[in-house]
Amino acid sequence: MTIITKTIQIKSRGENDMIDMTKQTSRLLTESKLEEGLVTVFVSGSTAAISTVEYEPGLINDFPDMLSRVVPNDIEYKHNETWQDGNGHSHVRASLIGPSLTIPFKDGKLMLGMWQQIVLFEMDTRQRTREIIVQIMGE
Amino acid sequence: MTIITKTIQIKSRGENDMIDMTKQTSRLLTESKLEEGLVTVFVSGSTAAISTVEYEPGLINDFPDMLSRVVPNDIEYKHNETWQDGNGHSHVRASLIGPSLTIPFKDGKLMLGMWQQIVLFEMDTRQRTREIIVQIMGE
Amino acid sequence: MTIITKTIQIKSRGENDMIDMTKQTSRLLTESKLEEGLVTVFVSGSTAAISTVEYEPGLINDFPDMLSRVVPNDIEYKHNETWQDGNGHSHVRASLIGPSLTIPFKDGKLMLGMWQQIVLFEMDTRQRTREIIVQIMGE
Repeated sequence: MTIITKTIQIKSRGENDMIDMTKQTSRLLTESKLEEGLVTVFVSGSTAAISTVEYEPGLINDFPDMLSRVVPNDIEYKHNETWQDGNGHSHVRASLIGPSLTIPFKDGKLMLGMWQQIVLFEMDTRQRTREIIVQIMGE
Repeated sequence: MTIITKTIQIKSRGENDMIDMTKQTSRLLTESKLEEGLVTVFVSGSTAAISTVEYEPGLINDFPDMLSRVVPNDIEYKHNETWQDGNGHSHVRASLIGPSLTIPFKDGKLMLGMWQQIVLFEMDTRQRTREIIVQIMGE
Repeated sequence: MTIITKTIQIKSRGENDMIDMTKQTSRLLTESKLEEGLVTVFVSGSTAAISTVEYEPGLINDFPDMLSRVVPNDIEYKHNETWQDGNGHSHVRASLIGPSLTIPFKDGKLMLGMWQQIVLFEMDTRQRTREIIVQIMGE
């Protein structure tokens, strides 16, 4: 059993940016030469999230549109009263979607669907450099 | 340390179908004869999701009702403009709930609550045959 | 490769209580003396959830406020008609957020962001004693 833990830095363009991390994750898996096991993708930070999505231009708009309806940025947040940073909605959105994703792999390949990509969701109001942990555990 | 990765095929009845996968997952764990470790349940595809729920007739209605309010199917989605497949809301719902679930096990048993079942949520608008990955890692 | 599976009991104060579990989780990791691997935090039960959040007094209000808007407690739930326990919304909220969280660790430390805490969300309408599973897998 082998564990490989890599940190990837990704620059986001701020709120509503969605970044496809599938190729980078697959490359790390190929380099590991492991055949079977579990990949964990985790974003270190409280205003970003990880999930999967069909990464195409329509959904890149539709998903943030949903977040804007469900967790609007133009209502009051107690977080903003205290910290004056205007990203209360970013924190709430990030906790709703969650920071971690686990994907099994076999025969050296991620077991994703054909139109299922690993995506980093930037929810903060400004550009950020994100640290994404990709951990591969297997044999 | 042992890794066992199985793919289960499940036929869904289309949108709002919720399928209890607890027995199948427990059976694979029993067959593995492993005592302690982690089970990952992952749905391969971008219009379905995995979580836990008390699987009873009331919540089988209440959970889809929530999704219909939060991610309605009768508003515009850019995904539908491009692909004309009418399942933009299915994609958004799936990314919101997420495709993966991890459950520890000990003494050969999943550490679920008494009224906590592993559930596949079908969100696509039509019947699908789903591939669910159940990966058991432990000793 | 070592697996350590601990159950922590936590008393909650009922609906909307959010409990920071970061210190307890970190302490278990330190005691394990493991250097690199994966921590899974899992709540056993169908009316509570686990995610990460910046644990500060503003967001402790903002996150439950979001849940109250998205999954209100004053609409009808079929669950309540059958079971008369008035916590249909608690179940739906718990399935929405999810019961499991996975966090990589390296050099004996959880790879969380500086303002990112592990939080148990109590969604049930009454005080509960929760069983949280913390499983550490690594070397």
